[in-house]
Amino acid sequence: MILPGDGIGPEIVEQAVAVLEAADKKFNLGLSFEQGLIGGASIDAHGEPLTDAQLAAAGECDAVLLGAVGGPKWDTLERDIRPERGLLKIRSKLGLYANLRPAILYPQLADASSLKPEVVAGLDILIVRELTGGIYFGEPRGIRMLENGEKQGFNTYVYSESEIERIARTAFEAAQKRGGKLCSVDKANVLEVTVLWREVLDRLAPEYPDVELSHMYVDNAAMQLVRAPKQFDVMVTGNMFGDILSDAAAMLTGSIGMLPSASLNESGFGLYEPCHGSAPDIAGQGIANPLATILSAAMMLRYSLDMGEAADAIEQAVSKVLDEGLRTADIHTEGCKKVSTAEMGAAVVAAF
Amino acid sequence: MILPGDGIGPEIVEQAVAVLEAADKKFNLGLSFEQGLIGGASIDAHGEPLTDAQLAAAGECDAVLLGAVGGPKWDTLERDIRPERGLLKIRSKLGLYANLRPAILYPQLADASSLKPEVVAGLDILIVRELTGGIYFGEPRGIRMLENGEKQGFNTYVYSESEIERIARTAFEAAQKRGGKLCSVDKANVLEVTVLWREVLDRLAPEYPDVELSHMYVDNAAMQLVRAPKQFDVMVTGNMFGDILSDAAAMLTGSIGMLPSASLNESGFGLYEPCHGSAPDIAGQGIANPLATILSAAMMLRYSLDMGEAADAIEQAVSKVLDEGLRTADIHTEGCKKVSTAEMGAAVVAAF
Ligand SMILES: CC(C)[C@H](C(=O)O)[C@@H](O)C(=O)O
Ligand SMILES: CC(C)[C@H](C(=O)O)[C@@H](O)C(=O)O
Repeated sequence: MILPGDGIGPEIVEQAVAVLEAADKKFNLGLSFEQGLIGGASIDAHGEPLTDAQLAAAGECDAVLLGAVGGPKWDTLERDIRPERGLLKIRSKLGLYANLRPAILYPQLADASSLKPEVVAGLDILIVRELTGGIYFGEPRGIRMLENGEKQGFNTYVYSESEIERIARTAFEAAQKRGGKLCSVDKANVLEVTVLWREVLDRLAPEYPDVELSHMYVDNAAMQLVRAPKQFDVMVTGNMFGDILSDAAAMLTGSIGMLPSASLNESGFGLYEPCHGSAPDIAGQGIANPLATILSAAMMLRYSLDMGEAADAIEQAVSKVLDEGLRTADIHTEGCKKVSTAEMGAAVVAAF
Repeated sequence: MILPGDGIGPEIVEQAVAVLEAADKKFNLGLSFEQGLIGGASIDAHGEPLTDAQLAAAGECDAVLLGAVGGPKWDTLERDIRPERGLLKIRSKLGLYANLRPAILYPQLADASSLKPEVVAGLDILIVRELTGGIYFGEPRGIRMLENGEKQGFNTYVYSESEIERIARTAFEAAQKRGGKLCSVDKANVLEVTVLWREVLDRLAPEYPDVELSHMYVDNAAMQLVRAPKQFDVMVTGNMFGDILSDAAAMLTGSIGMLPSASLNESGFGLYEPCHGSAPDIAGQGIANPLATILSAAMMLRYSLDMGEAADAIEQAVSKVLDEGLRTADIHTEGCKKVSTAEMGAAVVAAF
């Protein structure tokens, strides 16, 4: 299922679909695509950010490729019917609890980082974020009137052992396939829910003797990401901390327009989307970077469709166009060739 | 009241007291000091991280200067009697709701940052963090047994209008005295408690026409701090987001050993402490950087004791020793003179 969404979503997804079609042709994958609505696009058509019919249709596909949601047009709507709700609904209803967000510095783009080259050269972190629990979905929640007449807002940060265990196993397994290091991020010196988080991680650790588990408080993790990010291999944390840390980590690379993400459920079904947002300020101009979405499509082939060879080919094609010096505006530096969204997509297809 | 605490706490506080004594002599301030115990030091003596007697004594002073708390020795204790609890108790019981954390890049130390010089040169941000509410203190909290036999951890993120208004006013006033820009950080697209936060900020804004208020989601704020931190003047946010963002911001400077903090209550009483921790790994070696604590002492003179002239003099003395090339190990770079904790303290006293 293809859900282009809002802002630059349609433009970048169009290029990713073109790349998938090229991969289909070359590797005979037998792909077929359905298009659907999410976010503001769905609000405009149906008055809500994700209809139940659309949700059901997405769940029947083998995977979902999403562009991005949101924009100023829908910012004044009530929280419950805003574009982001569509994203939260599909994550939650399809059980997409494991959000995998790589933060990789492409050597060709080393200059784009705001950090010194020696601090980030070769950066390759994977952040595993719990995506269907924690304070994002905890009840009770709301705004109530106190007896003294003032309002009070409240949310609940909650995790059960099984929720923690599930995401922890995903992270341990990811660490096994990578550098063998897992750093779990919590605030166990203050929050009981993360005391339990730490307990569960420690209980599971002996089952993964080839993984070196460490724990870090979230404030320190934010500092260490700025100070010396290469100390990390895989990081695992809850929904809220993961939201913050994965964005910070992505920005270390200086090229968030390059970073894909996967959100998986227990059976390997997944939703794939770029880490960046819908960038309404540049929507429709044909200058957005489609590479994060193209790389998300590659992740989709690898994780949900078991088409690793085609995924590799897409990633190599992306690397090749970067080697050739092609750059969209967001990653452009002197001496490189500035290209449009469509030109970048076409170049990746041609590099196959 | 002087509360040296644990780890490097006693060493660095000793130097700050020496500097305060020098200021006292020069400006005839009439200061007098009492010493007390907090954190692990108090656990060892009294079995708890802050006794009620110590709390009461601190509250009767005009201000508190604190070193740092915590260390591996006490890490295996139950959460309720760990060193950090002493800190949370004094903040909460003395109503120290306004945590002011400047992130300033000293021009003399520009090289220490992991960010490119052009990204951080001249950085001067003030983070205003709410310190006595939010998820740190919200009830209900704990770990309970579910009917299915698994444990569940939970915490409550809660703010009332009056709590938000109080910290917002502190931040608006700080912005008035600085660059006139205030960025409020929330997660209003997901968390109701921060929807209320945003509402209150917007309601107060017309009272501060000279301050330009903006709102930013916390994930974006973490990114923007890494990408282009100089866009910020004053930032205001809740306890948990403030913990994370202020540490990230501090680390942008590369010299967290330089950064002071103030935690104030409604009557101007305050607790002053360095932003860094107790650094147990280097405790007792006489190599810790006392400057953050010395600068915290200067903040104390300015904010709680109305001795701005003496505060200025301390800050100028610190700047002078940096100009002279004196550096403790944490901020040392080639060509500078490496000095001990005591030598650094003595140099500041001599620079008066
Ligand atoms: C749009 C928003 C609800 C979402 C989140 O906070 O999860 C986004 O920031 C993300 O990280 O995918
Ligand atoms: C020690 C800890 C409880 C404390 C906090 O989280 O507030 C510390 O990180 C700080 O920022 O002062």
